Amino acid sequence: MKKKTKVNAAILIIGNEILSGRTSDTNTSTLALWLNSIGVKVEEVKIIPDIEETIIDSINLLRKLYDYVFTTGGIGPTHDDITAESVAKAFNLKYEIHKEGYKILEKYYKSGEFNEGRQKMIWMPKNAKLILNPTSGAPGFNVENVFCLPGVPSILKSMLGGLKNDIVGGEPILSHTINLRTVESEIASSLTKVQDNNKDVEIGSYPFFQAGKIGVSIVIRSEDQNKINFCSSQILDFVKHKKIKIVEKN
Amino acid sequence: MKKKTKVNAAILIIGNEILSGRTSDTNTSTLALWLNSIGVKVEEVKIIPDIEETIIDSINLLRKLYDYVFTTGGIGPTHDDITAESVAKAFNLKYEIHKEGYKILEKYYKSGEFNEGRQKMIWMPKNAKLILNPTSGAPGFNVENVFCLPGVPSILKSMLGGLKNDIVGGEPILSHTINLRTVESEIASSLTKVQDNNKDVEIGSYPFFQAGKIGVSIVIRSEDQNKINFCSSQILDFVKHKKIKIVEKN
Repeated sequence: MKKKTKVNAAILIIGNEILSGRTSDTNTSTLALWLNSIGVKVEEVKIIPDIEETIIDSINLLRKLYDYVFTTGGIGPTHDDITAESVAKAFNLKYEIHKEGYKILEKYYKSGEFNEGRQKMIWMPKNAKLILNPTSGAPGFNVENVFCLPGVPSILKSMLGGLKNDIVGGEPILSHTINLRTVESEIASSLTKVQDNNKDVEIGSYPFFQAGKIGVSIVIRSEDQNKINFCSSQILDFVKHKKIKIVEKN
Repeated sequence: MKKKTKVNAAILIIGNEILSGRTSDTNTSTLALWLNSIGVKVEEVKIIPDIEETIIDSINLLRKLYDYVFTTGGIGPTHDDITAESVAKAFNLKYEIHKEGYKILEKYYKSGEFNEGRQKMIWMPKNAKLILNPTSGAPGFNVENVFCLPGVPSILKSMLGGLKNDIVGGEPILSHTINLRTVESEIASSLTKVQDNNKDVEIGSYPFFQAGKIGVSIVIRSEDQNKINFCSSQILDFVKHKKIKIVEKN
């Protein structure tokens, strides 16, 4: 793939356990931070139930809209793990045993342990490229611009390193944060002026509560460090003028 | 609204800070658990950036697909808070000062403190219904089936109680969880049989790690307690037969 300046992605979280509220999703944050660091901007996240038709439709929509699509969840051994079969259908590919994956799990499990349930985990779309799993054996897989990862956060995290060469990012998205002991309404109009003067920089304002005190984090994001610095100096000007304290924040 | 058996909802998370990975979303879990308890099932969550066109398009799509739509984020006083104006445009309504909201904030802030930034928070779609905010004054609002809440989790949480009478849920979605000291592949085929015998019950299987030990949570969900009990007894049958230990989990 030719290197582009701006590269984007969508994340598709497949899992009833997130929609029911039982589990809070943390994979979005893990993936987005990692993708940012290699120059890929996440522009949409969709959380959907374990329903085949919904998975197929979402994949076919997102893979056309974005450079990359990352799915999480639904690649385990149980009946509610239907991501691989759904991806095969989305791409009109055969759903079959992946020979290389079979060999990996055959080696990973002791003889006799590689049962039917575990074999389900290497049923994949035909010719899928494996994403190796250094934590628990069972690999994820990649078809064209769609990358399918597991839902368990620690396992997902451990698989990202192996993906780096398959993702061609653009300019990394840089950011700078200024934490202030103030409230948003005190700085809103000054901040609007800075944003108006720096239209191609993304300025976000986020209230926080820490050790009983309130504050505001201003986050400046751009691919260009000079633009961030220029914007930051304008913010620091009004902060000084208004005698607002800059604070540390964890 | 006439009481229906099944009532569904979508959540629209508006915020660059979630997409950048800087912040993990916890509002989905808060909203979904609360909605479940009043008989509303969340069927889709979408996380989008602070871009007007994207907000308008998402609201106009979701409000037609689902009984209710809940938005979080983008209703504060700063330049990146564009939810209210976008909702007004989505519904073709005037975007104007909400008189009742103005009175609330006039009373909430000391004289002189009700500045331009704070006044922005009561600019809303014409005739929007207020959602009261017991934590920090500035209300959310509701237009038809769309309910707009803030992004700060503690404030959002405090506003849900006041919403209860505006949401007409269906049968509450009940659930029962069985935690087992096993791995998914050991129970996958037995669990598939139980799911096949109980097609209108939702059975989820989720690996967990607790105090260095792995396990599997089986979650059974339905509006009908009898169906949950029937399904549960079939699971307990194979658990007993396989000599799998049932464990406690926090």
